[in-house]
Amino acid sequence: MNSSEFRRRGKEMVDYVANYLEGIEGRQVYPDVEPGYLRPLIPAAAPQEPDTFEDIINDIEKIIMPGVTHWHSPYFFAYFPTASSYPAMLADMLCGAIGCIGFSWAASPACTELETVMMDWLGKMLELPEAFLAVKAGEGGGVIQGSASEATLMALLAARTKVIHRLQAESPELTQAAIMENLVAYSSDQAHSSVERAGLIGGVKLKAIPSDGNFAMRGSALQEALERDKAAGLIPFFVAATLGTTTCCSFDNLLEVGPICNKEDLWLHIDAAYAGSAFICPEFRHLLNGVEFADSFNFNPHKWLLVNFDCSAMWVKKRADLANAFRLDPTYLKHSHQDSGFITDYRHWQIPLGRRFRSLKMWFVFRMYGVKGLQAYIRKGSNKVNEALLQRINNAKKIHLVPCHLRDKFVLRFAICSRTVESVHVQVAWEHIKEMAADVLQAERK
Amino acid sequence: MNSSEFRRRGKEMVDYVANYLEGIEGRQVYPDVEPGYLRPLIPAAAPQEPDTFEDIINDIEKIIMPGVTHWHSPYFFAYFPTASSYPAMLADMLCGAIGCIGFSWAASPACTELETVMMDWLGKMLELPEAFLAVKAGEGGGVIQGSASEATLMALLAARTKVIHRLQAESPELTQAAIMENLVAYSSDQAHSSVERAGLIGGVKLKAIPSDGNFAMRGSALQEALERDKAAGLIPFFVAATLGTTTCCSFDNLLEVGPICNKEDLWLHIDAAYAGSAFICPEFRHLLNGVEFADSFNFNPHKWLLVNFDCSAMWVKKRADLANAFRLDPTYLKHSHQDSGFITDYRHWQIPLGRRFRSLKMWFVFRMYGVKGLQAYIRKGSNKVNEALLQRINNAKKIHLVPCHLRDKFVLRFAICSRTVESVHVQVAWEHIKEMAADVLQAERK
Repeated sequence: MNSSEFRRRGKEMVDYVANYLEGIEGRQVYPDVEPGYLRPLIPAAAPQEPDTFEDIINDIEKIIMPGVTHWHSPYFFAYFPTASSYPAMLADMLCGAIGCIGFSWAASPACTELETVMMDWLGKMLELPEAFLAVKAGEGGGVIQGSASEATLMALLAARTKVIHRLQAESPELTQAAIMENLVAYSSDQAHSSVERAGLIGGVKLKAIPSDGNFAMRGSALQEALERDKAAGLIPFFVAATLGTTTCCSFDNLLEVGPICNKEDLWLHIDAAYAGSAFICPEFRHLLNGVEFADSFNFNPHKWLLVNFDCSAMWVKKRADLANAFRLDPTYLKHSHQDSGFITDYRHWQIPLGRRFRSLKMWFVFRMYGVKGLQAYIRKGSNKVNEALLQRINNAKKIHLVPCHLRDKFVLRFAICSRTVESVHVQVAWEHIKEMAADVLQAERK
Repeated sequence: MNSSEFRRRGKEMVDYVANYLEGIEGRQVYPDVEPGYLRPLIPAAAPQEPDTFEDIINDIEKIIMPGVTHWHSPYFFAYFPTASSYPAMLADMLCGAIGCIGFSWAASPACTELETVMMDWLGKMLELPEAFLAVKAGEGGGVIQGSASEATLMALLAARTKVIHRLQAESPELTQAAIMENLVAYSSDQAHSSVERAGLIGGVKLKAIPSDGNFAMRGSALQEALERDKAAGLIPFFVAATLGTTTCCSFDNLLEVGPICNKEDLWLHIDAAYAGSAFICPEFRHLLNGVEFADSFNFNPHKWLLVNFDCSAMWVKKRADLANAFRLDPTYLKHSHQDSGFITDYRHWQIPLGRRFRSLKMWFVFRMYGVKGLQAYIRKGSNKVNEALLQRINNAKKIHLVPCHLRDKFVLRFAICSRTVESVHVQVAWEHIKEMAADVLQAERK
């Protein structure tokens, strides 16, 4: 395919993509196929001679789409949200064309530097403590990982290296294996399975701290486990706290857990994979309080911040903790700037060597939505809608309400007033409110 | 951005991509920028209100391109090739639109099943032993990893789990750490740094076997290390052999190393990241002989087989070795088919949980090039070009050559014939041949 055919086919593909997403509501969200459906539909081996593009595009509807679970259908409520936006898709097209492998600064300076600055932009949106930012050549900074699983694993491995070095400096006769035998990491019993998996991969014990009635890890439960394990000769070194668990979006108590980690010299990693996007709204930012105690923090813009997968944002307070954990410098990856102290070689920050130019997606999305647009997307609702709902309810005159303001939020007040009100009246009123709300939302969408 | 704006902007981006790649020869391959060039060029924080798309597209040439190392410039000879083709870019557009996260079969059956079948297609192109294929519900199969580093790490971790389970079954009193203390993995001293890094991450010793005069790992050197280490009480468990080293594309001797690994019950992983694509040509396939001794094999279609990054192809003889190494099954990831034995949940095969629909790129590329087109791309030359070169040389009558056939290859024979020939004549002849060859190649490109 030469570039003139690509111009034609690329534009057809743009239309296919737009048609797919415009019509996605009409597709069945979960496919009917049974395991093994696809193999009989396609040849047993690659064709010797080229197929035409028409053949392929026709096969998408015949072979692929019947087996697709449509994650961007408005009827998809499984697993977790995964981001999709047109600006991110445009950026990915550019990323594919540039096609650089940004493992070091020299491998494509723009790729590394835009990532560092975009991670600062995002950190500022979240009001992360300045210690996590790369601006002003501090010790911290951000990196795009492929997934929260990798962020957790990198944090655990960096913490493991750090504690081993510390203990070997104190007692040079200790072997790595002798230390690893006794290392213990902790997370709540509500943490994502990837935390337990990081422990298995890292070859260290991972203990689940029983969560409280709100499914939160509390300081007292953590402290109790630490005391018991230290008394048994074990070496606590790492705590993964979750903000927004997978099961019920519960929040570990950072303000209790954080100071304990600092006092006991444990690496504190915060996994806010799903909920983290909400912290760009000032009214939700308090949920991140306590991040100042953490060594590393991670959330996924590819879940809820309109940046297509993969884009998992991770910050550390000390870049060197990550970058030096498994630093290897073969000659063929060296470049003249690498020891200047002014540059970042992201290959030291992650499991793989290769990496795409993923910050382009952040740049396009942040600029084309603006911070206000992103906040509005998280809120998905406004005072205006609430005001319209109140007006519609009061115009219909079946029930009667008055509003109030809670700080800057317009709120509909529902007070039980009359002496004669029964449960049935409240239920009727609630059904009526739901109907009116559906009408308002439908009017909004037009 | 709504879908009608995406239709317009997407088509503009298609043209931008085609223009970029058509004109890439004219861009300076390595940028002039100094570390830190980008930050002063863009605002310190994300804009509150949206920027326009025009602003962004203009900034690509102003801010991004001056800092790009152009990996697809024909003057880029650094690091390694990274694949780029229009069919792969079209497939990536579709991948972005579908935007599914294919961690399990149910998460998008088409995503999992196309991957399994594409890995079989590619395995057949390489004439991999059937034990590595998933067809016919054997024990083997393929998976797309993000990078060769991840493939090596997954193989090492799976081997580590396997040997620990085996030794604990024999001696239940042995702790994991006590075993890990003595585990040793091996690779040639020419292996890529990612192999050493996998050892560091996995917490096991990785020893470098001295390579021979051709930079190849030989059986005798490996056997010697094994004997010495076993005598010292260590436990050899893993060997990473390289086909096509980064430094000089040397090949470890699989036919010597493989049988030793099998006899000693060591996991043999083959890393052919760069060179592996060549094995689709029958005349290069012999370089893969010995793969039948391996437990896992990996190469990167995203290097030399026209499938844009990331697409690292990995096969294992026993799926269960990978999938059961760190298997965790939280309720929120379960689905009704998972224990049927008929499906693949790729999340167990890799480090991250999330994964994109990367097999679409393989499908588009394999179909639009056909196996013959891919082979022609690897060969990048033909008998026809050689014949044209000979004709041009003999027409110019400055030197005189005759051809021969070596099997099906048309070869230009250069024989030292005259009694009076000196070194200077050979040098003049060689300069003349190079000039003629450049003319032939330039004529080809028109």
